[in-house]
Amino acid sequence: MARVTQEHLDARRRQILDGAARCFARNGFHATSMQDVLKEVGLSAGAVYRYFPGKDDIIAAITEETFGVIRGAFQEAARLTPPPTPDALLARVLGGVLAGRVHGLEPRTFAALVVQLWSETLRDERLAALLDEGYTLMRGAWTELVDAYRAAGILESDAASDHMARAMIATAQGFIVQEALFGDVRPQVLEEGLRGLMAMKTQKIS
Amino acid sequence: MARVTQEHLDARRRQILDGAARCFARNGFHATSMQDVLKEVGLSAGAVYRYFPGKDDIIAAITEETFGVIRGAFQEAARLTPPPTPDALLARVLGGVLAGRVHGLEPRTFAALVVQLWSETLRDERLAALLDEGYTLMRGAWTELVDAYRAAGILESDAASDHMARAMIATAQGFIVQEALFGDVRPQVLEEGLRGLMAMKTQKIS
Repeated sequence: MARVTQEHLDARRRQILDGAARCFARNGFHATSMQDVLKEVGLSAGAVYRYFPGKDDIIAAITEETFGVIRGAFQEAARLTPPPTPDALLARVLGGVLAGRVHGLEPRTFAALVVQLWSETLRDERLAALLDEGYTLMRGAWTELVDAYRAAGILESDAASDHMARAMIATAQGFIVQEALFGDVRPQVLEEGLRGLMAMKTQKIS
Repeated sequence: MARVTQEHLDARRRQILDGAARCFARNGFHATSMQDVLKEVGLSAGAVYRYFPGKDDIIAAITEETFGVIRGAFQEAARLTPPPTPDALLARVLGGVLAGRVHGLEPRTFAALVVQLWSETLRDERLAALLDEGYTLMRGAWTELVDAYRAAGILESDAASDHMARAMIATAQGFIVQEALFGDVRPQVLEEGLRGLMAMKTQKIS
């Protein structure tokens, strides 16, 4: 048997994950079989099982990678000084993520994959643990960002940083839902919509 | 055969929809069979088929009802003068919706049902049409609300009302995702998080 290079192994792994992501985005995790994945990537069962013993392992790898890419994009943007405000930041990151930075998927297909992932997570404990970990890291990154906004003088509010982090993550999640369902989320919509929200006057809570 | 009253028919219909909603929230639409629904509601096939010819019809009825309740809650709140700002409004509506106003479901179970619904919508044209209609109505209601904010002097921004409507809907959708996945969304988190976001200073886009 010929020796194979690390590059070859990585490319094969990439090919399997990208093909499986396309299948999952199209039909969901439940209705996709390993046979479907094999057909999509054009490899034999032996070749695929060498990398991933089962469908669950492919799903877990895609989940980790997808959330890693989103989180990395936020962390990268947040390192800018001064940090971009949420309107600009969310538009930049979601714009990039939805434009093929993950698995080479079309924006709407990528968004559909994330929605399928959430749905699958509701009945899969392994995925739930992965998502929980990814979400905790994301919340931590956003909480630091909120603290950076305060330090830079662009936020004067006693609202808890963690609650603000959750609101901003919610906005990103919601735009992913809208892209998956309706396919018409442009970065400009995101940016302008959030900018308007940030321009509202707050009322005292009675 | 005994004559049955309209109340009896309505109660039966309610019983079927609520039981089916519990099944779908637990296992998704795909993995739930009509047999599962019959077992959950404790009725015979004949009794159920009288109301709904198939699973698709139950799913469609639940979808229409769920989105109707959410939309109605927003419209009701938006009729207040002055309209509550998004932080107070979203906390009020999601707090109510997540507290058993739909199908008597627990907050997290209700949120899971909505996530399952989005996932199912990606591969079901009938549901996609229903959701599209519901979303268009919701966007219209929020757009009117944004115009009411401008009229009341609590919003001074040239951001498009529709884009702001989409950002606010996104926040609500994202909090539903968080409740489904992690089960810890309290109205206070929503309200404080959004209030902080609204208190941020916007930057000029260079």
